[in-house]
Amino acid sequence: MTRDEAQALLDSCELHALLGLELLQFEPGRVRFRFAPPASARAGEGGAIHGGALATALDTAATFAVISSIGADATTVDLRLDYLRPAVGAELTVDGATVRAGRRFAFADATARADDGRIVASARGTFTW
Amino acid sequence: MTRDEAQALLDSCELHALLGLELLQFEPGRVRFRFAPPASARAGEGGAIHGGALATALDTAATFAVISSIGADATTVDLRLDYLRPAVGAELTVDGATVRAGRRFAFADATARADDGRIVASARGTFTW
Amino acid sequence: MTRDEAQALLDSCELHALLGLELLQFEPGRVRFRFAPPASARAGEGGAIHGGALATALDTAATFAVISSIGADATTVDLRLDYLRPAVGAELTVDGATVRAGRRFAFADATARADDGRIVASARGTFTW
Amino acid sequence: MTRDEAQALLDSCELHALLGLELLQFEPGRVRFRFAPPASARAGEGGAIHGGALATALDTAATFAVISSIGADATTVDLRLDYLRPAVGAELTVDGATVRAGRRFAFADATARADDGRIVASARGTFTW
Repeated sequence: MTRDEAQALLDSCELHALLGLELLQFEPGRVRFRFAPPASARAGEGGAIHGGALATALDTAATFAVISSIGADATTVDLRLDYLRPAVGAELTVDGATVRAGRRFAFADATARADDGRIVASARGTFTW
Repeated sequence: MTRDEAQALLDSCELHALLGLELLQFEPGRVRFRFAPPASARAGEGGAIHGGALATALDTAATFAVISSIGADATTVDLRLDYLRPAVGAELTVDGATVRAGRRFAFADATARADDGRIVASARGTFTW
Repeated sequence: MTRDEAQALLDSCELHALLGLELLQFEPGRVRFRFAPPASARAGEGGAIHGGALATALDTAATFAVISSIGADATTVDLRLDYLRPAVGAELTVDGATVRAGRRFAFADATARADDGRIVASARGTFTW
Repeated sequence: MTRDEAQALLDSCELHALLGLELLQFEPGRVRFRFAPPASARAGEGGAIHGGALATALDTAATFAVISSIGADATTVDLRLDYLRPAVGAELTVDGATVRAGRRFAFADATARADDGRIVASARGTFTW
């Protein structure tokens, strides 16, 4: 799957753009997003990002890592989310990485980092296709 | 915390309304939401609900169950999500239930059910305040 | 799979007996174990049961629930464990239940209950075969 | 907490020795174990290690990572386990690492690696004290 095809897949659901999720890198097993959620996905102006918006960004990054590994669309079977620190910045960097892609399912991770490099939230999930 | 206060807490983040999440019941340890996500949170018109939108609904329901138990705002420490079936209906019922509220953290569950009563996704998490 | 076959499968790994895990019921989608861990699996005489021993009991119960549903051996893909209360009793009842068995993987739950009926630990996992 | 104190804590529950778990390194936020489970914790002679034995090793490594960070005993609140590959070797290396230690709880990871360096199972958990 090319980066353009991955972008088209991302564009096929408006929620990604509404939440300020932008694809920066798409390489086999490794993807990166810029995540700049609007005020509507925060607890008030400049407030903490909603855990569900973070979940969406992490799930998307982990899923796209799997997609980049297997070359086809994938869906989440289950996901663990850890909210390590308050997510208050204007913008986060969200990385997805495939941990292992087998014949029938894959494991992938995602991390959301603040400007200072600290992880504010992370995820580990199982995916299938 | 009264139901009106819970509603105000829900209204303090626009994302809930944008995703079509509406509080139906708010009792100690048990909450219920109607969840009617718009096309923008789906893979195309009438398509499957985005896993991140489901995550938001489940996280919100579990968090509000904890809030109803402890009588104060709570935040998610970690969450496991299971995507049991494709989520394609127009509307889901999302229930949150406190499993155990201790002195410093609580465990809660959430389930999202289709019209036919089948669970399409569920969550179990740890919360603090 | 008959109950005798399930018992033989349980007996094929000595760890189950060493940890005091005994099969009580084996019905489609639902299994029950008695779990009476020895002092060696506790923090001292009469002490709390090791989280790993609880994990073994819960993983085994959830796996056997899946086995009872699909009629063949199954393996754990991933598992979430929740330690709700101190596990100090002489004996626990551990129940496994299949949540959903699909074509390629299944979801199952397990709970470990004390004499007073309270859940001391629970698990939710994804399984394959 | 010194390494000798950590060793004494490990020795306080026999299960660790019974499962072949031996402390190799104990540094702030980072611990390493040798894990050589006996035949009784496998599916037959030379067979795959029981998922519960792996869970015990991973839970112990993650807990001891937290212990090394906070300087006191810690307990598991919840844990996610991923079984990435069949665990068939004679011996595994199990590493625990603290991801974040806060005031009231901590997040830690653990990985179990085969001789060839490949991760056969991993864990992420939340801990308190």
